[in-house]
Amino acid sequence: MFYEIIKPRVGETDALGYINNTVIPQWFECARNPLFKLMSPDSNLDLREWNLTLAKMTVDFQMPLQFGYDVEIKTFISRVGNSSMDVYQEAWQHNQLHATGTAVMVHLDFKSRKSLPIPDSVKQKMHIHFSSPN
Amino acid sequence: MFYEIIKPRVGETDALGYINNTVIPQWFECARNPLFKLMSPDSNLDLREWNLTLAKMTVDFQMPLQFGYDVEIKTFISRVGNSSMDVYQEAWQHNQLHATGTAVMVHLDFKSRKSLPIPDSVKQKMHIHFSSPN
Amino acid sequence: MFYEIIKPRVGETDALGYINNTVIPQWFECARNPLFKLMSPDSNLDLREWNLTLAKMTVDFQMPLQFGYDVEIKTFISRVGNSSMDVYQEAWQHNQLHATGTAVMVHLDFKSRKSLPIPDSVKQKMHIHFSSPN
Amino acid sequence: MFYEIIKPRVGETDALGYINNTVIPQWFECARNPLFKLMSPDSNLDLREWNLTLAKMTVDFQMPLQFGYDVEIKTFISRVGNSSMDVYQEAWQHNQLHATGTAVMVHLDFKSRKSLPIPDSVKQKMHIHFSSPN
Repeated sequence: MFYEIIKPRVGETDALGYINNTVIPQWFECARNPLFKLMSPDSNLDLREWNLTLAKMTVDFQMPLQFGYDVEIKTFISRVGNSSMDVYQEAWQHNQLHATGTAVMVHLDFKSRKSLPIPDSVKQKMHIHFSSPN
Repeated sequence: MFYEIIKPRVGETDALGYINNTVIPQWFECARNPLFKLMSPDSNLDLREWNLTLAKMTVDFQMPLQFGYDVEIKTFISRVGNSSMDVYQEAWQHNQLHATGTAVMVHLDFKSRKSLPIPDSVKQKMHIHFSSPN
Repeated sequence: MFYEIIKPRVGETDALGYINNTVIPQWFECARNPLFKLMSPDSNLDLREWNLTLAKMTVDFQMPLQFGYDVEIKTFISRVGNSSMDVYQEAWQHNQLHATGTAVMVHLDFKSRKSLPIPDSVKQKMHIHFSSPN
Repeated sequence: MFYEIIKPRVGETDALGYINNTVIPQWFECARNPLFKLMSPDSNLDLREWNLTLAKMTVDFQMPLQFGYDVEIKTFISRVGNSSMDVYQEAWQHNQLHATGTAVMVHLDFKSRKSLPIPDSVKQKMHIHFSSPN
């Protein structure tokens, strides 16, 4: 599991009084950063050498998130395929689950934009972050 | 169908050179505004009387969207249930489909936050925006 | 003058009930796009050949902007120097001025990032957009 | 001084390769949160009781900020008037100053939206955060 703490910003709320729905994908994106490091240990997070692309994203909104309290984002790898993987994420506040999401990410060559198999060495390192969503 | 034109902003691109993935849900949200008008014809888009909530959202990214060219958002109602509905949306650029999404929206009382049946009068008006995704 | 219409998004409001202050710079940035076209008529808004950089920005908030109503952004060139210029902008809603801002922009070579004189041919074209803020 | 660490998000970069200029006001807003706590010690950051409003904001961009490295935001109170104050902020990365800004904030009654004197008890607490920009 990867773990990230988010401090909500005033501008991330909306006039309905809670965190706007479109903000959750931004927090989840932020919490997936360690995956890029795992995928390219030597790249130093250089976005020009980014080799993971988002093919699909799903978010389920269980409860509205509040301003003024930290949000915990828990990130798991829930499936590893040949060249793609599923990343399952949870947003927690006040020790309650508020939103969940799944991102389907594809490994690709950053120059040709063609999909590439995920190397076995990376798959092994992914193991400790593995979890199936309940 | 509801139709919206979006002019991408520099700040909506990211260092990979295209529109950032987390921006598409913001454009789709914007293009769903007419639904609220349909749901509460007299509310004048007052967010304190907002009576639709997003329960789930899915986005499929087919091709990266570019800065410098208008994006067309097409919004369809693809399912109407008792108190919820599916809104299917497409983002087009250069006459090519770049991203699609589905939002599951629930009709609720804006004070009690309890789900409410969608009135028949509204269902009838929804008819002309109805379409099943291919 | 350059003229742009903005349709506020739900996610651009905040829990205080109006458009969040940090959104105005995003709208102003969007309304400055035609300046890049003026500066490099052949570049087709390619961000890799962007040759104007923001050195300083000031925003004055007179009245809070509302969701549900179009916002008009008026953009003027208020000063042209050797390699820099001031861009003065206004945000109007309901025919009332709500916010103003000034952006100091520097013309530079997009490869070396060194400042460059603004060509006389461009200065001449800027003339019709010229106006001093009152 | 108030101190905040920001972890840049991919979506906060733009196609020019660095953090987009319009993001800095969002980070500065986030770093001003402790001021609201100072102003209303009992309000628990409830946005409906928010009693500080932004009248004016200035940002100077010295160097473009990078993705992949933490940003430190330092927040000082640089002037306290009768009902308003200036908040001076700095964004640091790699121990170098990258951007500075000043926010003019007005103390007001959150119901009537009329300006209110800043109480002496609050002014005293502000003392330890006081600093004049160099």
